[in-house]
Amino acid sequence: MFEATKVGRSVSKADYKEQQEELRTQLLAVQRDLRASNVPVIVLMSGIEAAGKGEVVNRLNEWLDARGVQVFAFWDESDEERERPRYWRFWRGLPPRGAISILFGGWYQTPIEHRFRGDCTDAELDGELNNIVDFERMLTLDGALVVKFWFHMSESVQKARLKELSRDDRSRWKMLPDKSKFSEHYAAFEQVAERVILHTDRGISPWYLIEAGDRRYRDLTVGKTLLHAIRSRLAESGTEEPQNSLVSPDLPSSLSAQITVLDQLDLSRSLSRDDYKRELKRLETEINELAWMAYNSRRSTVLMFEGVDAGGKGGAIRRITNSIDARLYRAIPVAAPTDEEKAHHYLWRFWRHIPRAGYITIYDRSWYGRVLVERVEGFASDAEWRRAYSEINRFEEQLVDSGIILLKFWLHISQDEQLKRFKDRENVPYKRYKITEDDWRNREKWPQYRDAVNEMVGRTSTRHAAWTLVEGNDKPYARIKVLRTICETLSQALKTTPLPTAGYVPCGDKRINGERKSS
Amino acid sequence: MFEATKVGRSVSKADYKEQQEELRTQLLAVQRDLRASNVPVIVLMSGIEAAGKGEVVNRLNEWLDARGVQVFAFWDESDEERERPRYWRFWRGLPPRGAISILFGGWYQTPIEHRFRGDCTDAELDGELNNIVDFERMLTLDGALVVKFWFHMSESVQKARLKELSRDDRSRWKMLPDKSKFSEHYAAFEQVAERVILHTDRGISPWYLIEAGDRRYRDLTVGKTLLHAIRSRLAESGTEEPQNSLVSPDLPSSLSAQITVLDQLDLSRSLSRDDYKRELKRLETEINELAWMAYNSRRSTVLMFEGVDAGGKGGAIRRITNSIDARLYRAIPVAAPTDEEKAHHYLWRFWRHIPRAGYITIYDRSWYGRVLVERVEGFASDAEWRRAYSEINRFEEQLVDSGIILLKFWLHISQDEQLKRFKDRENVPYKRYKITEDDWRNREKWPQYRDAVNEMVGRTSTRHAAWTLVEGNDKPYARIKVLRTICETLSQALKTTPLPTAGYVPCGDKRINGERKSS
Repeated sequence: MFEATKVGRSVSKADYKEQQEELRTQLLAVQRDLRASNVPVIVLMSGIEAAGKGEVVNRLNEWLDARGVQVFAFWDESDEERERPRYWRFWRGLPPRGAISILFGGWYQTPIEHRFRGDCTDAELDGELNNIVDFERMLTLDGALVVKFWFHMSESVQKARLKELSRDDRSRWKMLPDKSKFSEHYAAFEQVAERVILHTDRGISPWYLIEAGDRRYRDLTVGKTLLHAIRSRLAESGTEEPQNSLVSPDLPSSLSAQITVLDQLDLSRSLSRDDYKRELKRLETEINELAWMAYNSRRSTVLMFEGVDAGGKGGAIRRITNSIDARLYRAIPVAAPTDEEKAHHYLWRFWRHIPRAGYITIYDRSWYGRVLVERVEGFASDAEWRRAYSEINRFEEQLVDSGIILLKFWLHISQDEQLKRFKDRENVPYKRYKITEDDWRNREKWPQYRDAVNEMVGRTSTRHAAWTLVEGNDKPYARIKVLRTICETLSQALKTTPLPTAGYVPCGDKRINGERKSS
Repeated sequence: MFEATKVGRSVSKADYKEQQEELRTQLLAVQRDLRASNVPVIVLMSGIEAAGKGEVVNRLNEWLDARGVQVFAFWDESDEERERPRYWRFWRGLPPRGAISILFGGWYQTPIEHRFRGDCTDAELDGELNNIVDFERMLTLDGALVVKFWFHMSESVQKARLKELSRDDRSRWKMLPDKSKFSEHYAAFEQVAERVILHTDRGISPWYLIEAGDRRYRDLTVGKTLLHAIRSRLAESGTEEPQNSLVSPDLPSSLSAQITVLDQLDLSRSLSRDDYKRELKRLETEINELAWMAYNSRRSTVLMFEGVDAGGKGGAIRRITNSIDARLYRAIPVAAPTDEEKAHHYLWRFWRHIPRAGYITIYDRSWYGRVLVERVEGFASDAEWRRAYSEINRFEEQLVDSGIILLKFWLHISQDEQLKRFKDRENVPYKRYKITEDDWRNREKWPQYRDAVNEMVGRTSTRHAAWTLVEGNDKPYARIKVLRTICETLSQALKTTPLPTAGYVPCGDKRINGERKSS
């Protein structure tokens, strides 16, 4: 597939000069239109060594208005990155709407290197490439434009270029520690590259193969391609995928056919005051010890709470935060997004708070807002919340794959119990702040929320990230169930061998995942 | 001074219960008022070991509305933090306006530990404490409320508490690696604590000494103190310090008495095309090599560009970014702040982008906006821009002290040259985007800007961070001067021994600073 990048295309100096000026003007114009749009532009720079990716980036920096372009290289991982799921660093580099991020290598770098070095099989590489396709689709559907460049040239041209670089004072080759020499294995590397490109060349995020032998040809082609890509994207009316108009199966109208998972909860469950006190004391001690053990073995934990209004989320969370050393956790109350958050994919604001190795993040409400309040209130379009189920599943899978212990709680109460609590809140001074007009309004949409929750649980209670549904009418019972579930899960998870490098699992190393998943 | 914390104060269970409910209601009420205000609240928790700082934080988490409270512990430094100036991690934890951050130890932790361990002298400790006072004053003047708690108790009570903790299953003492035992040197620690408290107990940010022997007394006192502090702060009309009404010396009206540093620039300086080409090639090679050397020796660089509109900042920056490997630098064009940025001290948005060890950040416009455009256009109040000079000096001093190589450029052109360039920009298509109505408007304020620049250079061209004024009428001359200045400074700085741990200099280790400063 690389034949077209070995034909020796070039551009004369005079042609370059003339076309460059025109191109530059158009790029600046399209960038102005971009800024006024909702589109974030992600440019990936990949290709064989010595193709001049850095030179191209410098050229684009020269042509474009620097306000609105950010460049990210992913070659030098910090421990804050290493201690989190693999994709955390990429999320950090995603552009806000209206801006451009240029990513060196991006998410392709590691899988290619691993396969090239034989650290994984073709099948394992394909698995990772599927993840990438999903990731790029998610970004694209959210409005992003993904432009992927692959720079290539023939073996003899590469050899000559490398020789030239080794003579050049300005080259970084002299300074860098000796890396495995891709160039000495041209054919093998090309084979891996072809597999990667073939599997990830999709209509929504195509690869552009660029012959890199002639610098002027290379730079002009990249500039024109980028210009055209942005221009067409801005001309599109929308990027919604055609959706199946039916969300859930069409149900018979008998009552027994419309039971939800929530109806199956036995809300009469309760705990005596003595049992509660005894269990609470025991579990508070245990959860603190487990939190320290998790810290010492560098395992991270994400605790996520959703539930009916007044379902007891706050109380359950406080029992946890009262027990655990305040140095070890961060509680994130999820409220209205900031403008920086609004300018990104909706998962971005949750990625921000993913804990470092050994720490705990507690989300009070979460990414499930997309398929709950945003669905019911119409804040998200049909297409948006429908595709969110699989986006959420992939997101949680990444957390779990990186070694994070993930627990998701739904705190449920009956409609009668909710009414009782609302009234109680209005009567107790320090609880009054918790009750708002919104709560009463949401209450009227109980049936819609019931359906949304039922579908949410059905679609997102996966093997790697199951929901824990909590019968919440009796607060003591609910709190103990939450604490006990956390303690049991943590103590089970901590029995397995800790990951060698938490937060990073190369595509080939499924063995580690397997061990952890079996726990 | 600690006598009052050893008298054995306590609160009965019944009293606690009654007062707690009332306190909680009031705290929530004041928090609502706070949210609607412009005030960020910073709560520092310090004190002797085993005083129960963690317990107090948990209690506050229980009493307050979690939306609007963030807790930060600074015991476990990540390499991203270690590789930046010491205060970078504190800036990360500063609350936005209307919210509360609770900081364990905060900026007091390290100086106390160092002095206690004998790593620095009393005089050196005092130096660091002066920095702290300045820092807290800066935050306070920006509208922040700083509430500092010191928890204390008698030696015998502490001994008993430690014994109790070592028996307690929930305590972290069992899990933590053995730290130097503060408790075994009660008197010595108390002596350091007294020095620290005495030197940093200012009207704008007083210490509150809390007897920590009785948990109920301790928690209620903290809660009530915090409540009162926030309430009084919100009741205040403003926090402006009385200002001297005169900014600069009152000048005689003769022309020769009103020369500015800018008038002394010889704007006729120029470079021939041949000289330019030759020098450019040489310097481009050199700067790239130096950037790699700096990377290898983990020295960071901050390049900052200010200048007259159309003064040639963009062109000068592009010559740098074209030469340096794109993996090594990040260019930050400073435009309008985001709402997250607006919710913090104006320096916060620049702290965000401080480079990690070995990297380069290029600021296109900078923190000097405060004393330039914000001063001239009246975006900042008189008091705000007047105190900004010393805030900026302290900020830059911190950068340099941490090992960062800092260069500040002012690109200057004459009024005639500016007019020529404005017209030129309007005629060249790809330059047109650079010229706006604002530029023409600013031009009319040339005399005000001239005065502002003159004062800025006078007040902020310090020994550790001098301005480089660039004669910009001839672009080749200006670009070469910038490149040459960078190369000379870098190569000089890199000759000195690299810091043992870049980004962290304990208060006692002036030797390292001395070495670096002498370069």
